[in-house]
Amino acid sequence: MNIQFLLAERPKGAPDAQTWQKVNNEIPVPEEGQVLVQNEYISLDPAMRGWMNDARSYIPPVQLGDVMRAVTVGKIIESKHEKYQTGEYLVGLGGVQKYFVINPEKLNRVMPNLAPLPTFLGMLGITGYTAYFGLLRIGEPKEGETVLVSAAAGAVGSVVGQIAKIKGCRVVGIAGGPEKCKYIVDELGMDAAIDYKNEDVGKAIRNHCPDGVDIYFDNVGGDMLDAALGNLSKRARVIICGAISQYNDMENRQGPKNYMALLIRRARMEGFVVSDYAAEFANAAMEMYPWIQSGKLKSRETIVEGIENFPDTFKRLFSGNKEGKLIIKV
Amino acid sequence: MNIQFLLAERPKGAPDAQTWQKVNNEIPVPEEGQVLVQNEYISLDPAMRGWMNDARSYIPPVQLGDVMRAVTVGKIIESKHEKYQTGEYLVGLGGVQKYFVINPEKLNRVMPNLAPLPTFLGMLGITGYTAYFGLLRIGEPKEGETVLVSAAAGAVGSVVGQIAKIKGCRVVGIAGGPEKCKYIVDELGMDAAIDYKNEDVGKAIRNHCPDGVDIYFDNVGGDMLDAALGNLSKRARVIICGAISQYNDMENRQGPKNYMALLIRRARMEGFVVSDYAAEFANAAMEMYPWIQSGKLKSRETIVEGIENFPDTFKRLFSGNKEGKLIIKV
Repeated sequence: MNIQFLLAERPKGAPDAQTWQKVNNEIPVPEEGQVLVQNEYISLDPAMRGWMNDARSYIPPVQLGDVMRAVTVGKIIESKHEKYQTGEYLVGLGGVQKYFVINPEKLNRVMPNLAPLPTFLGMLGITGYTAYFGLLRIGEPKEGETVLVSAAAGAVGSVVGQIAKIKGCRVVGIAGGPEKCKYIVDELGMDAAIDYKNEDVGKAIRNHCPDGVDIYFDNVGGDMLDAALGNLSKRARVIICGAISQYNDMENRQGPKNYMALLIRRARMEGFVVSDYAAEFANAAMEMYPWIQSGKLKSRETIVEGIENFPDTFKRLFSGNKEGKLIIKV
Repeated sequence: MNIQFLLAERPKGAPDAQTWQKVNNEIPVPEEGQVLVQNEYISLDPAMRGWMNDARSYIPPVQLGDVMRAVTVGKIIESKHEKYQTGEYLVGLGGVQKYFVINPEKLNRVMPNLAPLPTFLGMLGITGYTAYFGLLRIGEPKEGETVLVSAAAGAVGSVVGQIAKIKGCRVVGIAGGPEKCKYIVDELGMDAAIDYKNEDVGKAIRNHCPDGVDIYFDNVGGDMLDAALGNLSKRARVIICGAISQYNDMENRQGPKNYMALLIRRARMEGFVVSDYAAEFANAAMEMYPWIQSGKLKSRETIVEGIENFPDTFKRLFSGNKEGKLIIKV
C-alpha cells in the first residue's frame, strides 16, 4: 500500500495534528511515458511552511487534499519511459508519500555512487544550491569581507558559512546554544559564533564585526534581521533567504524596523528563489563536489526513520531541535 | 545683525517651539581664505528632521547649540579668498541663518543667469540630483517599465516621475488629495495618480499596475511601502530615498511587514545618499538643463518669505501643506 500525507487544513500558526491527513492508497500504476518512484528520503525544509499558506508566492500553494509538497530522493521501481530504467535514482518534488508516478523528465537524475543519497537533498541538492547561489550571486562576497549568517548551524546557514570561508571571507555565525556555537567554530571553521539564546545579538555583532557587516545572509527575520541591519557596513548586501521566525505567525509578522539602515549605509536587501538557477545546478555541484571530497565543506544531517513521523518531525524545523539538514528516511 | 536658528532641543516627535532658539548676533567677519555669505534662499528638506536625532547616520547629527543645518543659496558680500569675488553666488550647507563665513571651496558656485536662484535648491540642486541618481542609478529604469513613486507631487517625487517619463516608463504617482493628483497627471504628465487620502492604496496599485511595479521610488515608508511591496513585479527595484511617515516617531517606527516580497519576487530594496554622487552633479545638471528649458521637466515651489518663519514652515514638510519644493526666502 501507498502512504500519503495530504494537506487537510491550512494552519493559522504552527502545524498540528489536524494539518495533515495520513491516508493509505493503492500503489499507483505508471502510464506510458511515466515511471513509478519509491521515495527513500524526504527533505524537510522551512519553505514548506510557506507553501501551505493560501497566498501569492513564488510557487502556487499546496491545495487542500493534495499530497504535501516536498523534495525527495527516490528509486524508479517501474518504468514506462524509454529513457529511464528501473533502479535509477531521481530527485525532485516527489511529495510526502511512499510511492508516486510521474513523467521523470520533471525530476533530476542523481548518481548514487557519487555521495550518500541524503547528500542530494543537502549539500548537492536544494540546500547546497540555496547557500551557493544566494551567497555568491546575491551577496557577491569579496575576499576579506565580513559575512554574518543566521541559523549558522542549520542546513543552509552551515553551508553559507563554509563557502564564505572558502572564498576568503571572515565569517560570524549566529546559532542557538553553546553546543551549536562550538560546532560552527570548531568543526565548520567559522571565525566567531553568537549564541542568540544567551547573548544580546546586536551587541555581539558589534563586538565581532567592529568594521560592520558586509554581507548578512538571513534565514530568520525578526529581531535578528534588525540587529544585523543596525550593524551594516557601507554598501552592504543583505540576502533574504528565509524568515523562519515569522512563518508560523504571518498575521503578526514583523517588518525590519531598521530598514532605513539601507539608506544610511547605501546598502541593499535582496531576495532570491533557488529554482531560478536550476540551469546552473550542475555547475554548482561541480564546484562544490571537490570541496566536499576534501573536507572543506562538511554537513550534518538529522535523519528520522519512518514516513509516519512526518508531522512531528516537521515541527523540529522551527524548534531548532535538530542538527543540520532534517531528513526523513521513508 | 545676523539672525540664526540654533538647535536648542532634540525633538522626540514633531519639532515645536522649543526645538530651535532664534538668536541675534553680530555679522561675522571673514578671515583670510574665507568669504562672508548672505543667504538668500534656504531649502527645507525632510532629511533635516533626521539630522536632528542623536543617531548614527550618513552625516553626524547637528549638535545642540549649533546653527541648524540646511542647504542654502547665498551671495558673497565680502571676500578674503583670491578666487572668489563679491557678488558671486554659492550653494551648499549654509545653515538656517542670514549671514555666515566659510572657506568657499566647501560650497559650489551657481550661475544665476542660467535659472532663477531657487532652482539651484530644487531641480538643479540636491532635490533634482536626488531624483536623478536615485531613479537612474539605483532603479535602473528600462523603457516600458512601470514606475511607482510616492509623494509624487513633492519636491523629489515630482522630478522622479517626470524623469521616468522622459526615459520611456509608465508612471503611477501617489499623492494626497484630488488637486495634487490632477496636477501630477495633467501638468507633469504622469500616467495615473493614486490619492492616498481617498483610496485604498494597495487596491489602487493593483488596478493601475496590473503587471506589477517594476520600480518603486519610496519617500514615505510605512503602509505605503508595504502596499508597494505587495505589488512588485519579478526582479523589481525598491529605491529607499526617505521615510517621511516615520521621521517624527522613530521609537515606534514601522518596518515593512511585506519585505518577504523581496524573496517571492526576486526583488531588491536599496538605499542611497545623494552626496555620494557629488562628483557627477555637474553631469546630471547638463542632462537635466535641456529638459527644464524645453518644458519636459517642470517644478513648483512654495516660497515663504522671512527667515523668522522657519519653525512654522518646517512643519509643512510633514503636513503636505505645500506644493513641490519648500523654500524660505531670507
